[in-house]
Amino acid sequence: MKARNKLTLIIMFISGSLVAQRPPAISSPNINPDKSITFKYYSKNAKRVSLSGEFLKSPISMKSDTSGIWSVTVPPMTPDIYPYSFYVDSVQIADPNNSYIFANERFKRSIVDIPNDKPLIHSLQNVPHGKVTYQYYNSKSLNITRQLLVYTPPNFDASGKTKYPVLYLIHGGSDTEETWTKVGHANFIADNLIGQGKAKPMIIVMPYGNVRPAPMLDFTKDIVNDIIPFIESNYPILNDSKNRAVAGFSVGGGQTLNIGFTNTDKFGYICSYAPFTATEEFKKNFDNWNPNADLINKQVKLFTISVGTDDFLYESVKKNIAMFEEKKIKIKPLIVSGGHTWMNCKIFLTNSLQEIFK
Amino acid sequence: MKARNKLTLIIMFISGSLVAQRPPAISSPNINPDKSITFKYYSKNAKRVSLSGEFLKSPISMKSDTSGIWSVTVPPMTPDIYPYSFYVDSVQIADPNNSYIFANERFKRSIVDIPNDKPLIHSLQNVPHGKVTYQYYNSKSLNITRQLLVYTPPNFDASGKTKYPVLYLIHGGSDTEETWTKVGHANFIADNLIGQGKAKPMIIVMPYGNVRPAPMLDFTKDIVNDIIPFIESNYPILNDSKNRAVAGFSVGGGQTLNIGFTNTDKFGYICSYAPFTATEEFKKNFDNWNPNADLINKQVKLFTISVGTDDFLYESVKKNIAMFEEKKIKIKPLIVSGGHTWMNCKIFLTNSLQEIFK
Repeated sequence: MKARNKLTLIIMFISGSLVAQRPPAISSPNINPDKSITFKYYSKNAKRVSLSGEFLKSPISMKSDTSGIWSVTVPPMTPDIYPYSFYVDSVQIADPNNSYIFANERFKRSIVDIPNDKPLIHSLQNVPHGKVTYQYYNSKSLNITRQLLVYTPPNFDASGKTKYPVLYLIHGGSDTEETWTKVGHANFIADNLIGQGKAKPMIIVMPYGNVRPAPMLDFTKDIVNDIIPFIESNYPILNDSKNRAVAGFSVGGGQTLNIGFTNTDKFGYICSYAPFTATEEFKKNFDNWNPNADLINKQVKLFTISVGTDDFLYESVKKNIAMFEEKKIKIKPLIVSGGHTWMNCKIFLTNSLQEIFK
Repeated sequence: MKARNKLTLIIMFISGSLVAQRPPAISSPNINPDKSITFKYYSKNAKRVSLSGEFLKSPISMKSDTSGIWSVTVPPMTPDIYPYSFYVDSVQIADPNNSYIFANERFKRSIVDIPNDKPLIHSLQNVPHGKVTYQYYNSKSLNITRQLLVYTPPNFDASGKTKYPVLYLIHGGSDTEETWTKVGHANFIADNLIGQGKAKPMIIVMPYGNVRPAPMLDFTKDIVNDIIPFIESNYPILNDSKNRAVAGFSVGGGQTLNIGFTNTDKFGYICSYAPFTATEEFKKNFDNWNPNADLINKQVKLFTISVGTDDFLYESVKKNIAMFEEKKIKIKPLIVSGGHTWMNCKIFLTNSLQEIFK
């Protein structure tokens, strides 16, 4: 007990200067041998602590032991990457003992990654790995220097001798440019599919899409006038539309439709995941849209809209699909179970990566 | 009011599925025209909310308006990057409206970046930018595949024609491999010093140092036997000791001393920042240490220990410095004001980058 206290004290000291109220080191979440999962939280003062997670229908209560450690164990669940958080009295927080955080601008949630016996397509496997590079570009459209992320595939040839197709991949509203890798594991999905020969080696560009005031118009300008030229002058890129794809989730799915269908000469593949389209901008672009379907169907080799049947946007997305069908635009819908989640995003991306650049 | 509610509702919808208790969108922190800073937090239920920050001696109370928005305004402070958090009743949390989070495994804090009129050395300036690459290596020493970060300088020549010196830069205990860039802005500091001609173009490798059970012995093996060979086979590196440096903060500062002084043939520069050395491993290595000072002083071109006079380790670090002096090892201490903080880390790194590889 004394040694333990001493250790805790040392950890408290070495972790920074605001240490007075630091809780003891506890491990959370823990995946138990029987695959159940235990979540823990330390508080001597809290009156009620509960667990909220995308694997639960509604929050469940946690119980405190005499030392102030609250815990709850949930039965084994389908292996996947799930967001969760704690409610401590009135406050929703990320798990303070879990450094794996959901990259988002509007909420703080933690992530639990439940592995499968046979590794899942989004897990770190024993295959050659690509890299994810954080870099800065100057957007003249937005008058700002900002960060984007670039995935280069395993054994990437930087010499310029090999040229690669490129996917522009956009996060959801309130997500960040890191969400597709940190929550969506886009890099591992690509590594694994490329390693299995199921996807072509490609470059994946993940920009920051929360652009104001006009997320569709202004971000389309940023992508077309700034990001694409920046990428094509800095990476060995196949720069025709047959080798250029755009995909995105939620608000990013709406942006994908706007970017793609205002630039069908530039994007041979348009993959929209659970698009959010209830915006003035979308209405303006698509309500009285009179497309040249024959031309578009020649230019766009694949147009897909993916959604889960429990997604709160399901009815809206069905209307989007019907609208494109009514305009005679060829579309390949992917309807799966599940909600407006990053679990589904991984399924959608896994599907797209095997269908583009073929 | 109605439009505002509708907007909030839309934002709640598009941000994910656990939206029922999502607070309204508020902006925090805000830097006001007079340079004072306003922090805000929304809660209808909290009884007490206070602000804790490394710019404050002790937490200060926030006040709630009738709509449940708690706020406090602090006077202008020295421009820097400061960690802060809120105490909501019993719970210490990061600011839910700020996506800039301290990368750490043991606590959740937010970051406020207060710009200076004349841009600071750690700020994003209008100079050519390097890149930070996230990639995976296989550590045979630790029997794990894990991530490390690699900074390559502006206009990096990947062709192999230009070869670069390399700094191995280690975070503090409970930090992660991202802390030196996300909190320490090591990449911007390097960009700016290189841009000004004050530092040589170099590669900076930021590994994950929280290695168990033996953070000194096992991590030294990982660096020497796995990370250095991995980097040297994947990047154009000048691979002699005159072009290899090691630096680190806190626990990473202790690791730096251990890595450096058990490998003085490999590291020409050893830069230890506020080292934490109260470990059995350090005692074992240095208590009855009988170094060949003449040889070491020839091998090591720069050995520095940096610390702030308010650092809780200040007395301990003075003893470390005295120990090396007593053993006749040439040492260049850097004593500044301030505590065991990442504000000081940036000062220490800025100093080191101008002194190594010269």
